[in-house]
Amino acid sequence: MERYDIAIIGTGPAGISAAITAKIRGKNILLLGSRDLSSKITSAERIENYPGLPHISGNELAQKLSEHLSQLGIEITERRISAVYAMGSYFGLQSGEDIFEAKSVIVASGVVREKLIEGEEKFLGRGVSYCATCDAMLYKGKHVTVIGSSSDAAEEAEFLSTVVGSVDYIPMNDILPAERENIRIIKEKPLAVEGTNKVSAIRTDGGEYETNCVFVLRDAIMPDKFIPGVDTDGAHIKVDISMRTNITGLFACGDIAGTPYQYIKAAGQGNTAALSAVKYLNTLK
Amino acid sequence: MERYDIAIIGTGPAGISAAITAKIRGKNILLLGSRDLSSKITSAERIENYPGLPHISGNELAQKLSEHLSQLGIEITERRISAVYAMGSYFGLQSGEDIFEAKSVIVASGVVREKLIEGEEKFLGRGVSYCATCDAMLYKGKHVTVIGSSSDAAEEAEFLSTVVGSVDYIPMNDILPAERENIRIIKEKPLAVEGTNKVSAIRTDGGEYETNCVFVLRDAIMPDKFIPGVDTDGAHIKVDISMRTNITGLFACGDIAGTPYQYIKAAGQGNTAALSAVKYLNTLK
Repeated sequence: MERYDIAIIGTGPAGISAAITAKIRGKNILLLGSRDLSSKITSAERIENYPGLPHISGNELAQKLSEHLSQLGIEITERRISAVYAMGSYFGLQSGEDIFEAKSVIVASGVVREKLIEGEEKFLGRGVSYCATCDAMLYKGKHVTVIGSSSDAAEEAEFLSTVVGSVDYIPMNDILPAERENIRIIKEKPLAVEGTNKVSAIRTDGGEYETNCVFVLRDAIMPDKFIPGVDTDGAHIKVDISMRTNITGLFACGDIAGTPYQYIKAAGQGNTAALSAVKYLNTLK
Repeated sequence: MERYDIAIIGTGPAGISAAITAKIRGKNILLLGSRDLSSKITSAERIENYPGLPHISGNELAQKLSEHLSQLGIEITERRISAVYAMGSYFGLQSGEDIFEAKSVIVASGVVREKLIEGEEKFLGRGVSYCATCDAMLYKGKHVTVIGSSSDAAEEAEFLSTVVGSVDYIPMNDILPAERENIRIIKEKPLAVEGTNKVSAIRTDGGEYETNCVFVLRDAIMPDKFIPGVDTDGAHIKVDISMRTNITGLFACGDIAGTPYQYIKAAGQGNTAALSAVKYLNTLK
């Protein structure tokens, strides 16, 4: 299996900036994320403080960043990473049943802005899952619930419906899954995951629904849930001024590395993270 | 006297980014530096890793940054700051005989890349000066030396020649002062400032020249020399991830805040510094 120099998780301004600098420094990179770039970019109406690009819309900035990637021949691999494991001399990045390998990792996956749902953390791994692709098979033929917040949540629910028995879909955005006999749309606000040892139901502002698993699909997941051992401060990964985390060879930048949540700050940190990764790679030789 | 909300020292990408964000946040700012922007920008042949502006020349980037400032109505005040004093509830910024006042300060003045000259630090204030405007009168009628490294050093030497008796000018770049009877150009490499209690001569690779004062005029000066009490690490001001220094209300960003020396990193840090300054100003209310 190919072992990349640097795996970069996230295609917001931080991940893109990291990819650009790492590529220019001649590294073999794997850039993971959405080809539509981060929805946080494209959804911005006007960005006034990205120096050099005054009064630009989110879509225009996304366009310019895409062009920059193309000019450098950088491709985006559209895979969702559910876990990053430090293996000693390299990292394993889990995506469904596949594992990518990289000597160093830059985490630029954005921050969870939504409040966690009551019971979500308590039942994680016992009927709460963040990854449909990873855990679908565990619920073959059974009834599950999807809280759809990420841009690809509706698609994931469609996939789930081909494996599990039936799906209750609670949309948190405007995208709905295709009509299927075994998908029921519940337009209510999820309040709590309930159960004793494991999840048995989800409670909303409209009622209570039995379920075997609640898939909470957000664009970002809590960092300590997907990178075992990383030091965090709430929803943020702790970094130093060089974007180093407590795990050697693992760097973080952008929103996940703390406030302010700003495009240009993210782009700057991505650059720093890439150069810190390059410096780290030099120590491996 | 007007007391600004935020004084920003430096017109490289860090200072400009800080000014843009501070202005958008409605702050009353004073942006101090060269209207030609930092010579480090304009001198770059090609910048490949400023995301969104691929393969841009330094001059083009400077042009775009200038336009961004203009669009927001931000003016550059072309004054050199020789010292920043923390006065408790505000800061005093010395420029020649004038003092500017600001509630908070963002230092984005770049980093000293040149090696110090032997004896320079030892004799600082005893015959070594970093500011012609400030100290010219001390040497009225006397013979002095200028080591001209900054873009305005030649001009400063011309000014000096109207006050002091005579000037030896050692150019470190291509710009020479206008021909004057009392200015002598010495195209040699300065090696050491010499003297016992105070400076008596400068030694070069071509000889030794008597002098009463050596003016070392660089684009940037050592931070602990111009901001008494600031914590430094060599040529850098120590900052945390929010660009705060050890002095409350004083922030630093860009090259002076440490490596890597990169445009996009500087722009990102400028944004963070501005938002940290805004947060600090809120605590004063």
